[in-house]
Amino acid sequence: MQSQLLHTPEGVRDIYGTEGARKHHLEQLLYERLHLGGYQYIQTPGFEFFDVFRKERGTVPMQEMYRFFDREGNTLVLRPDFTPSIARCAAKYYREEKVPLRFCYQGNTYVNNSSYQGKLKETTQIGVELLQDGSAYADAELLALAVEVLCQAGLEDFQLEVGNAGFFAGIIAETSLSEEAVLELRTFIEDKYSYGVDSFLAEHTEEIPEGCQRLLHLLPECFGSMEDLQALPALAEAERLSGAKQALLRLQEIERILSLYGCSGYITYDLGMLGKLNYYTGLIFRGYTYGTGEAIASGGRYDHLAGQFGKDIPAVGMAVNIDLLLLALARQKMAPSPGEERVLVLAAPACEAEGIRRVQALRAAGIPAVLQIEEEKAAVFQDETACREFARVERIVKGGGSE
Amino acid sequence: MQSQLLHTPEGVRDIYGTEGARKHHLEQLLYERLHLGGYQYIQTPGFEFFDVFRKERGTVPMQEMYRFFDREGNTLVLRPDFTPSIARCAAKYYREEKVPLRFCYQGNTYVNNSSYQGKLKETTQIGVELLQDGSAYADAELLALAVEVLCQAGLEDFQLEVGNAGFFAGIIAETSLSEEAVLELRTFIEDKYSYGVDSFLAEHTEEIPEGCQRLLHLLPECFGSMEDLQALPALAEAERLSGAKQALLRLQEIERILSLYGCSGYITYDLGMLGKLNYYTGLIFRGYTYGTGEAIASGGRYDHLAGQFGKDIPAVGMAVNIDLLLLALARQKMAPSPGEERVLVLAAPACEAEGIRRVQALRAAGIPAVLQIEEEKAAVFQDETACREFARVERIVKGGGSE
Repeated sequence: MQSQLLHTPEGVRDIYGTEGARKHHLEQLLYERLHLGGYQYIQTPGFEFFDVFRKERGTVPMQEMYRFFDREGNTLVLRPDFTPSIARCAAKYYREEKVPLRFCYQGNTYVNNSSYQGKLKETTQIGVELLQDGSAYADAELLALAVEVLCQAGLEDFQLEVGNAGFFAGIIAETSLSEEAVLELRTFIEDKYSYGVDSFLAEHTEEIPEGCQRLLHLLPECFGSMEDLQALPALAEAERLSGAKQALLRLQEIERILSLYGCSGYITYDLGMLGKLNYYTGLIFRGYTYGTGEAIASGGRYDHLAGQFGKDIPAVGMAVNIDLLLLALARQKMAPSPGEERVLVLAAPACEAEGIRRVQALRAAGIPAVLQIEEEKAAVFQDETACREFARVERIVKGGGSE
Repeated sequence: MQSQLLHTPEGVRDIYGTEGARKHHLEQLLYERLHLGGYQYIQTPGFEFFDVFRKERGTVPMQEMYRFFDREGNTLVLRPDFTPSIARCAAKYYREEKVPLRFCYQGNTYVNNSSYQGKLKETTQIGVELLQDGSAYADAELLALAVEVLCQAGLEDFQLEVGNAGFFAGIIAETSLSEEAVLELRTFIEDKYSYGVDSFLAEHTEEIPEGCQRLLHLLPECFGSMEDLQALPALAEAERLSGAKQALLRLQEIERILSLYGCSGYITYDLGMLGKLNYYTGLIFRGYTYGTGEAIASGGRYDHLAGQFGKDIPAVGMAVNIDLLLLALARQKMAPSPGEERVLVLAAPACEAEGIRRVQALRAAGIPAVLQIEEEKAAVFQDETACREFARVERIVKGGGSE
């Protein structure tokens, strides 16, 4: 009967039992860490006017958004991404504010991807945005925070891959490539498909100065430690690509600050990482671990987004995908334990007052406790397996005595 | 410029600053209390197939739901109510389970009401569902939990108004009134409009037995303490309205158990409270305080909902509307304080390493701390008002010394 009725739509799911307890626990753990970093909670609506997320913002593609209409006929969009909403808030509520703004958020995003490989369409994100600070210190603060948050979650083996969208942009600025051609080239570079890049360069020699060609040719190989990349700034300098050179110097500065935070060991660099979100202008990063191929954390600098909402300030953000992180932790057998110690108090009806006092006392002592009085229901718990959810069972069978 | 771009759609809003901090703190406080009650976290999707919420379920009216389509053309609905989703989960994942099931949830619901009086369309709810327990103990447990949660929130002056949907249903079962006529009568009773009820009775004498007329005539006045209502069971008995009588005896039993929990002082009874959700079959309640006219908490028994998903079990639920509760607390000047002690560390660039060590130490000690190094940005904090968000400012100007 009604089996269709029990299903959830493609790409969304129920989370319950041990997994539910772990998810809630993990969210609390990570939120606490963001809070300690001085970030302040902000909550934006679950849906907004389409305008907030339209193409110019550089967020997820329009065809991947859930759209619907309000009673007045306006197009509304289920939040696909927190960043544009928070940039909007900064512009709206902090217009005159001159100090750096630190916000943290926790909630779900909705992306109507084509759901190959069972990709989730609803994901829980917890993250921060640091606006009105364009410094390398701000970039490093977010990377260090991402490292600390992932360590806090219990992850031991992970890497943040760090790039700078300004490097590729600095090279492209010197070419006369069309928007479509650049898009094609981006794909080859993102995929580290050297042959594709070289063929592309051979086809577009007239639109790309020689110096740019040399750097683009190298790009699929430009990853590793900062030392592996140390020849690049001189190369960019020699080719007079000042934008690209600045991007490299910025990464060196970030690396220097990260070493002070003591978290360089978790960082590798990849200049060929260009990112899917178009609003990124500088730093860009993704966190990976084993157990899932997708990024468990990601972020970057977006210096031209808040300006679209009327406050032209630099900004950098970071988010953790809780669902993927939880999946990775489970596959690594490192799922966080909420340290559950739930007690079941079974009281005979004649001992109801005592049963109530007992669970009240347990709860006051910080111990989750369930009371079961009615005989018919209590009888179900004679079966041992029915008690498996509880750390302890107490029976109150007559006045004064509990066993 | 672009002022339209800064707006949120009608009925939804941004929450930030002190209000944001308070909201997050309040949610954590209340969640902790539900967890201590032995309730286990469950998360259902933000949208589901329309089927889960269709009219037969008895949730909010269809015209108040946000509907849209997936790629396959299915109608999806933004969750207007957690209860049907959790009933679905109980039927799907706990089909063979015989013990009482205790779930708690935390999240947003979306109701596209006609927004008079600036009513919110997105509200944060935190609540529980207790399934597979049809006893008065379960009813009392939820009422006691509602009282404890509201006390935990810091509220001192509030009342839970408690009714029993079975009382009205038990009377109506003996009449031959049409569905439309019952609906009209419900409205008069809900509004305590005695003149309307009496006119209605006069118009429908043939469809309503005399005994039922006598009880319906009394209904708008049937509220107060349990003592005020103590003549009613005998009256129902005399009129041979056994359903109505059982509903009254059930409330007396609940009252007896609540006195053991020590929370009778927060309870009043109102048999004329019929509820807006049609799935309620027994206990029904709403929590009120001053500062908002709407209910800050509500709930009731729904013994025929899970059966529609294939597991025919009784159930009772309770939810707190966090947004309204926060509003009421603020108006009562009792807004919960997250006990914020955020420290700003201003370090000169030459002292960057020391600045980083300092914030790391503060955070390790559980103190939220922000670091500002770059001179240009740090200069903004020379202005006293820029520091108002911080409990303390530390300046590290030269190696070894902090002032």
